[in-house]
Amino acid sequence: MNKTVKEIAALIKGEVVGDGDIVIRGFAGIKEAQKGDITFLSNPRYLSFLEITQASAIITTPDIKSSQKTLIYVDNPSLAFANLMMLINPSPIKLEGIHPTVVLGKNVKLDRNVAIGAYTVIEDNVCVGRGTVIYPACFIGYDSRIGEDCLIYSHVSIRERIVVGNRVIIHSGTVIGSDGFGFVNVEGIHHKIPQLGTVEIADDVEIGANVTIDRARFDKTFIGRGTKIDNLVHIAHNVVIGENCLIVAQVGISGSTTLGNSVTLAGQVGVVGHIHIGDGAVVAAQSGVSKSIPAHTQVWGYPAKPFTLAKRINACVQRLPLLYKTVEELKKRLKELEERI
Amino acid sequence: MNKTVKEIAALIKGEVVGDGDIVIRGFAGIKEAQKGDITFLSNPRYLSFLEITQASAIITTPDIKSSQKTLIYVDNPSLAFANLMMLINPSPIKLEGIHPTVVLGKNVKLDRNVAIGAYTVIEDNVCVGRGTVIYPACFIGYDSRIGEDCLIYSHVSIRERIVVGNRVIIHSGTVIGSDGFGFVNVEGIHHKIPQLGTVEIADDVEIGANVTIDRARFDKTFIGRGTKIDNLVHIAHNVVIGENCLIVAQVGISGSTTLGNSVTLAGQVGVVGHIHIGDGAVVAAQSGVSKSIPAHTQVWGYPAKPFTLAKRINACVQRLPLLYKTVEELKKRLKELEERI
Amino acid sequence: MNKTVKEIAALIKGEVVGDGDIVIRGFAGIKEAQKGDITFLSNPRYLSFLEITQASAIITTPDIKSSQKTLIYVDNPSLAFANLMMLINPSPIKLEGIHPTVVLGKNVKLDRNVAIGAYTVIEDNVCVGRGTVIYPACFIGYDSRIGEDCLIYSHVSIRERIVVGNRVIIHSGTVIGSDGFGFVNVEGIHHKIPQLGTVEIADDVEIGANVTIDRARFDKTFIGRGTKIDNLVHIAHNVVIGENCLIVAQVGISGSTTLGNSVTLAGQVGVVGHIHIGDGAVVAAQSGVSKSIPAHTQVWGYPAKPFTLAKRINACVQRLPLLYKTVEELKKRLKELEERI
Repeated sequence: MNKTVKEIAALIKGEVVGDGDIVIRGFAGIKEAQKGDITFLSNPRYLSFLEITQASAIITTPDIKSSQKTLIYVDNPSLAFANLMMLINPSPIKLEGIHPTVVLGKNVKLDRNVAIGAYTVIEDNVCVGRGTVIYPACFIGYDSRIGEDCLIYSHVSIRERIVVGNRVIIHSGTVIGSDGFGFVNVEGIHHKIPQLGTVEIADDVEIGANVTIDRARFDKTFIGRGTKIDNLVHIAHNVVIGENCLIVAQVGISGSTTLGNSVTLAGQVGVVGHIHIGDGAVVAAQSGVSKSIPAHTQVWGYPAKPFTLAKRINACVQRLPLLYKTVEELKKRLKELEERI
Repeated sequence: MNKTVKEIAALIKGEVVGDGDIVIRGFAGIKEAQKGDITFLSNPRYLSFLEITQASAIITTPDIKSSQKTLIYVDNPSLAFANLMMLINPSPIKLEGIHPTVVLGKNVKLDRNVAIGAYTVIEDNVCVGRGTVIYPACFIGYDSRIGEDCLIYSHVSIRERIVVGNRVIIHSGTVIGSDGFGFVNVEGIHHKIPQLGTVEIADDVEIGANVTIDRARFDKTFIGRGTKIDNLVHIAHNVVIGENCLIVAQVGISGSTTLGNSVTLAGQVGVVGHIHIGDGAVVAAQSGVSKSIPAHTQVWGYPAKPFTLAKRINACVQRLPLLYKTVEELKKRLKELEERI
Repeated sequence: MNKTVKEIAALIKGEVVGDGDIVIRGFAGIKEAQKGDITFLSNPRYLSFLEITQASAIITTPDIKSSQKTLIYVDNPSLAFANLMMLINPSPIKLEGIHPTVVLGKNVKLDRNVAIGAYTVIEDNVCVGRGTVIYPACFIGYDSRIGEDCLIYSHVSIRERIVVGNRVIIHSGTVIGSDGFGFVNVEGIHHKIPQLGTVEIADDVEIGANVTIDRARFDKTFIGRGTKIDNLVHIAHNVVIGENCLIVAQVGISGSTTLGNSVTLAGQVGVVGHIHIGDGAVVAAQSGVSKSIPAHTQVWGYPAKPFTLAKRINACVQRLPLLYKTVEELKKRLKELEERI
């Protein structure tokens, strides 16, 4: 990049306060920024860096004042900064065309501007929408449909009959459509239950690296539009996830559980099967969810409880050594009293 | 499918109650079933769906009565339904023959009816038993032996000298035979301990997606016959697992721990190293097992305790705010009493 | 192997006590060892096996005495044994040269003695240092640099612009450089924040199977020299890990958290973002770390607390049913007293 603060402000529709002619060369976080970098400030915990950052300009909100720094005022600094980064940086994706080593089955339909890297294998009857990029060494099973403008990184396995929407990003090593974990136990032997269903991923979903999403027994496991899934998450068969959820790393969701819209499951949360988590619910990290959660509830703990109750109980637990002491003392005083009477 | 209820009953040796001439076209769960579908009912929690399901026939047990629905009575509806699905559905596996891009080392022995997908790499001296299917993009290290009728999905890594039994299913992205995590610390530096052992997987084991099973230091890490392992499970070096166990998603088992037969570890359980979990033990989800568990015991919690004790303690924890209140009150009353005397 | 005890003692600079002419043929653990094997004894918990092991010789420390067994005395038996195993055993790595199916981009520099297995794909401008071995079916993105004498197993994904030091081992299925999990929420919709940074892995790091290490937002995610990471670990964007740390299986570390040197995180630990874990800190298995931890502190629990406090609180929790009883009794006695007065 080689742009003045004025030019940058025009790109993100911001207002310059300070020297608009400073030339910006790079992006950086407020702590690491050097001269020539632009940064942003939206999280109040970083306010103390405002005057000491080495950045040459700071994108922030109009309530932030600085006597020395050049600022660009916008409504949402984090979003403006993200948009600026995407406007300025060339895409990191350099794949083009279909590599000659790609193995295509019968009746595969690749729309225009599809790019597929070396050694990817695509089985019969697969459709890939225009603009989609598939990295090297992926596998896509027969009858699957991948939408437009998707980005599928290396070593992704998509089994047969899976549906992936538009603008979906799938990071490396992720497996979509493996068999659900279902067995009938007859006299101690586990007999496999066929998993004949599929997985459907709606538009604008992002799925991290080494995630596993199992196919349903009959119907489909479903990930709703705009939901973002972090690395190493496990989603069991028949799970239905709503729109715009955040599923943080290493979460596990058991079979047939359903999530509403805008649910957040923080890292390493475990959820039992056959329950419902309501719209907007937030589950704190490492919690174990054993019962359905009403909409817009925050829960924490093992088993998970409403956040304020969990906090109160946790505070009680931390003070237990003191409580034991108090009870011991009461016992002693009571005994004395009993003896005196 | 296009079969009458009578024909289906004959296939699963069931008894028809109702109209045996109804034509069945598909399979579905009792909630999602439509006209023309057959479903099953074995879990009492779904009993309320018996009269309202749209299914045209229901496989269930003789104790279930319906005035309107066509039923097929069998001893084990879930098993009968699973068997029926396998009888009726064509196998989803369409791989045949050895793809010309498969790289075979020296002295590789492929028995008859082996199918191997594109870009799979098999090193020297590997044997693959008859009927085994290996998906594209797998890696099998030298001197490994894969049994008969196995199913190995895409992107599976099987390192050198691994033994896999018959009818084993391994889902995509799983790694078998990576080095155990072993180091000698000398003055703060971790020196690698060579992991010269191997992994042996007995017959009829199923292993989920993105699982990791480390090779032993000397001897072998062992997974017993009929054991089923879910996605993203970690099994450390020298672990020995008995027969017919269920290891649910995201469980971690530390080095040298042994499991008896028919053990169940629910999701996200962690088990320390060098302990034994007895036959038939059940560990509830997210528990942390720090000590050996006797056979046929159910445990829960962190650290894991016998289930009834854990439940009692958990109930005590939930009521702690009340206990603090009670103790406060006792203190006050005692003080009054002391002052009065 | 076919060496006398005397010859072995010379290799590891040990002192023979007993018959130095016994011929040793293999290595084994003290429990499983057979006649002809050499084993070692350093962990006191295995002391009871000293006289009953079938091993023909035991490497141990000079304080251990045996009337019947042939011993070799060294300072560090575990290290001596590991070194002996590496001296005696031929390397299990048999890859040589660049397989003709390897796809190399423009301007790829492979130093001498590099070996690359079939179907590995390396993009433009990648450098690979001398002696490095890359297994089949890996992917290395453009502008990445891999050091000398590294060992990269099958199905590893290394995205663009990643730096890997010397003597780094990366096990199968691991993903390095996937996008950090970062979004700006605008009116309920999650907008992706570009992740323009990279990952740097210092010398002598070992990374297990199916691990995920995300690239930084701007700068770099960093793994310090000599740190060892087990299977299925998740390391989020902008995390900085010091030297010689041990990160055990299924640990998750959230964004921007920093670890000092020689930190141990036991299995399934979760760490929140934006905190610091001091040098030499030890976090017990399954703990949830929600605050910074001072150097050389041991913590345990959820949320994690200093180890002795956590143990005391846990002991209190276990005795809760008794405490409730005691309080009930006090209440009763107090009531009696109140009535008597």
